[in-house]
Amino acid sequence: MRDIMILAETQLKPATTKGHTSVAHVADDWYVVCESQQLRDRPLAVTLLDTPLVLFRDNNGKAGALLDRCPHRNVPLSLGAVKGENLECVYHGWQFDRRGICQAVPGLVGEQKSTGRRVSAFAVREQDGFVWVYATPEVEPEREPFRFPLIGEKNYTTVRQTVEAESSIHAVAENALDVPHTAYLHGGLFRSATSKRNEIEVVIRRWHDRVEAEYIGEPRPPGLAGRILAPGGGTVMHFDRFILPSIVQVEYRLGDRSHLCVTSVLTPISDFHTRLFAVTSFRLPIPGWLVALFLRPLALRIFQQDAVMLKRQTETIRHFGGEQFMSTEIDVLGPHIYRLLKQAERGERPPQEEPVIRKVRMLI
Amino acid sequence: MRDIMILAETQLKPATTKGHTSVAHVADDWYVVCESQQLRDRPLAVTLLDTPLVLFRDNNGKAGALLDRCPHRNVPLSLGAVKGENLECVYHGWQFDRRGICQAVPGLVGEQKSTGRRVSAFAVREQDGFVWVYATPEVEPEREPFRFPLIGEKNYTTVRQTVEAESSIHAVAENALDVPHTAYLHGGLFRSATSKRNEIEVVIRRWHDRVEAEYIGEPRPPGLAGRILAPGGGTVMHFDRFILPSIVQVEYRLGDRSHLCVTSVLTPISDFHTRLFAVTSFRLPIPGWLVALFLRPLALRIFQQDAVMLKRQTETIRHFGGEQFMSTEIDVLGPHIYRLLKQAERGERPPQEEPVIRKVRMLI
Amino acid sequence: MRDIMILAETQLKPATTKGHTSVAHVADDWYVVCESQQLRDRPLAVTLLDTPLVLFRDNNGKAGALLDRCPHRNVPLSLGAVKGENLECVYHGWQFDRRGICQAVPGLVGEQKSTGRRVSAFAVREQDGFVWVYATPEVEPEREPFRFPLIGEKNYTTVRQTVEAESSIHAVAENALDVPHTAYLHGGLFRSATSKRNEIEVVIRRWHDRVEAEYIGEPRPPGLAGRILAPGGGTVMHFDRFILPSIVQVEYRLGDRSHLCVTSVLTPISDFHTRLFAVTSFRLPIPGWLVALFLRPLALRIFQQDAVMLKRQTETIRHFGGEQFMSTEIDVLGPHIYRLLKQAERGERPPQEEPVIRKVRMLI
Repeated sequence: MRDIMILAETQLKPATTKGHTSVAHVADDWYVVCESQQLRDRPLAVTLLDTPLVLFRDNNGKAGALLDRCPHRNVPLSLGAVKGENLECVYHGWQFDRRGICQAVPGLVGEQKSTGRRVSAFAVREQDGFVWVYATPEVEPEREPFRFPLIGEKNYTTVRQTVEAESSIHAVAENALDVPHTAYLHGGLFRSATSKRNEIEVVIRRWHDRVEAEYIGEPRPPGLAGRILAPGGGTVMHFDRFILPSIVQVEYRLGDRSHLCVTSVLTPISDFHTRLFAVTSFRLPIPGWLVALFLRPLALRIFQQDAVMLKRQTETIRHFGGEQFMSTEIDVLGPHIYRLLKQAERGERPPQEEPVIRKVRMLI
Repeated sequence: MRDIMILAETQLKPATTKGHTSVAHVADDWYVVCESQQLRDRPLAVTLLDTPLVLFRDNNGKAGALLDRCPHRNVPLSLGAVKGENLECVYHGWQFDRRGICQAVPGLVGEQKSTGRRVSAFAVREQDGFVWVYATPEVEPEREPFRFPLIGEKNYTTVRQTVEAESSIHAVAENALDVPHTAYLHGGLFRSATSKRNEIEVVIRRWHDRVEAEYIGEPRPPGLAGRILAPGGGTVMHFDRFILPSIVQVEYRLGDRSHLCVTSVLTPISDFHTRLFAVTSFRLPIPGWLVALFLRPLALRIFQQDAVMLKRQTETIRHFGGEQFMSTEIDVLGPHIYRLLKQAERGERPPQEEPVIRKVRMLI
Repeated sequence: MRDIMILAETQLKPATTKGHTSVAHVADDWYVVCESQQLRDRPLAVTLLDTPLVLFRDNNGKAGALLDRCPHRNVPLSLGAVKGENLECVYHGWQFDRRGICQAVPGLVGEQKSTGRRVSAFAVREQDGFVWVYATPEVEPEREPFRFPLIGEKNYTTVRQTVEAESSIHAVAENALDVPHTAYLHGGLFRSATSKRNEIEVVIRRWHDRVEAEYIGEPRPPGLAGRILAPGGGTVMHFDRFILPSIVQVEYRLGDRSHLCVTSVLTPISDFHTRLFAVTSFRLPIPGWLVALFLRPLALRIFQQDAVMLKRQTETIRHFGGEQFMSTEIDVLGPHIYRLLKQAERGERPPQEEPVIRKVRMLI
């Protein structure tokens, strides 16, 4: 995979890196636009892939998503109000149903409903407490949204967090699944740059719509933490996964009693603005409420460090007019995520039953 | 007219509406740049059609308008000062008269005046208390500025107001003359979305340089207001007019004693920034000072509601890179204003003695 | 030289001056990026010709300059820290030496040093208390940095000041060396628009890499100032110089005891953002510390007046999309500086032993 992202290694004119970025627009798939509880009786303006959308619930509680631009005079429909099954524009009172069909043009003599008068409508699903929107309007979705694992399972506690990064989907996903940076950027928080390193094996498996890295022989956390999390000993299992169009997942098992899975759905608000809807589900030897108490601030602290770095990375990429990345074999997932996103952007996801497998060694 | 502005009614890729807008640059006509009283003994910087101009009065009180860019080193002449008949640049002291001809180059040995050294000059007129500028420099204007009706007429009171909108000339003009939105955007202020509607006739007359809509059979204001304004009964006469390049006029007569005419000259500061110089003249059965007392805050309140809507409309149009309007027959003036502006932008105003007439019916 | 910069003198469409500016990118030369004392044990981010650079001192005190973009994931190296001879990236801990060669990739199994993994490095010199950087990376500089005259010479006092202007190198240089504007923009500070003027001769000499103007017969400062500065009488010698790529120098001698030389190195941070590192060295009949006391605030006052004008000039040029300058023969240096910069930008500096000489007369 190295050949995908290693570009010219020296260059006399550094400022000429124009045009190339990891930004990919995958419009034929589902994204989370908000939590279900955020969408109440008033219309809600959201942005997906730089397109303004208005979400609303009709009087049956069903959620709709329309292009947030009245077709009459192009003001945002989100300034309006819900009227029965319809959303009413605040400017001239035109009304649209969840299918985007205009149901009323106040002042117009004669038939007001017209299938010719409409606004683009987007498919909507509500599941796992989130509102999902299919990013291409006016089509029957080819697939269904991702389902979060472990939510509601016995003995599991689930914590939700929403954060934002001024960065592309690709950069956020690579960062979230990258192991080597943790010893530096988060040094002291969970890995350390100065402690002795172990050489371990990483197995990378890529399918047509996902890629995972399995870390084999990763040592248990040292000291008290390790004893609490895996009192009976046992091995550490660690998987990092990226699933199209924008799901990142980190899964840990320590011994037979500790299981932790962090799944984040990344929403591309615009090319360099990403919202992360993170769901952490876990079963640990210590009480869930106690873990949750520590988990939230720790996760936020780590994320804030990442967010600063991603922002500065974006600024640099913007300043140079593009990326110029140089990868090594321990950048185990970034180049694969890049390839999956670019293929998906071109509409290429030919089903593939057996994964492509690659193994590398890494000091951890 | 519907075919002018109804574009494709459905579209799969909503964000591709690039390029089309109602913005028109009509440079061969007059615009108000300030009130006469604003131009005193110091130069005044204004912007017209995105071009920076400097206004000044010479020692005879005559107003001049020059391009606000010294031809020597391109600093704004408006930073300078009036010296006799000339405007002096603050940087090197070059002086220019109202014709734009350089009269002094301090330090230069020999003849300082040169018709070859000059800055672009714009024709200026002062009338009705406003300074008008012809938007094409260095030419003899083809026409004279619009004259406000009723100013100074017996029994009429005149009120002036200046406001600004982040919107194009077209959008401001259509909004100012649009009836259907009043029941929604200004619901409760003068029309209502919930009250019973009457079907009336609207006669639209378009000449080469203007268009008017006459509302026939419009009901008198209900209750006390109607009795005060038209105590002897009688019909309501209501005209809405757009006159090139940017004058909008709303005229009402109720019975034989009430007459109200609001004329606004719209100045295109830039494509999406418009200044409105509004002049309201009226003769009513109640004292003028009392009307003026209520008129100002009411007009401002209505305008502020419109300004918010126009701003959001502009943002949406900018975001999508263009407009995509869908009109019906009760959008009686907008499409005509669009056609007049675009024709005028191309220099097409062939005189036309008889108007093109069209009638539509509207619920009001 | 007039033909170089006099463009069309009248134009009907003023806003069409697109594209032409005096901005020149001279990358094959040296610029000051900071004072030596500003670069300590932490990396320092600077910008030169719109390119972000990171400066750092290794553990031997030697200064290095690298492109401020880690080649791995394009975050600024200036966020990192110095580790021995290397600069370490904060994100993944990659380390680079002053030559830009990567010395460490934490986590990578096997050889970490690779001449193939590198970041662009720029030549650095420290002299006269400044850090100079050669603006083209990865090359052996063709020439050495300018050396300031008079620093440390017996009986001379030296004062340093750093200021910034929102303007191009060309505009700042012309302004700093321009005589006619002083009577207007700085009227009252050292020349006056109203006092009687003397006609003097200016000799302009242009070489391949510099141009100077010598003012002959310039009168002594009037009154007390003249008697203090040149108590024994004698002539005034006054030279203004521009030296590629961006040095401006004003030198005065009054009689045999007063000598003042202001040398400023202009650093092009970006097209319209210039930093001036000014060094004033003088020997005067009054104590140096006393002169320094008055010199700083006076110089700052003058510079602030210039900075306001340069900013407004830049705004005007930006608004019109380019310059449209009209010069006369008393713009003695500006057109020459323009020619030198544009030739240097094209790589043309053919050595020329004898200057091209031109004489003009000026009222001063």
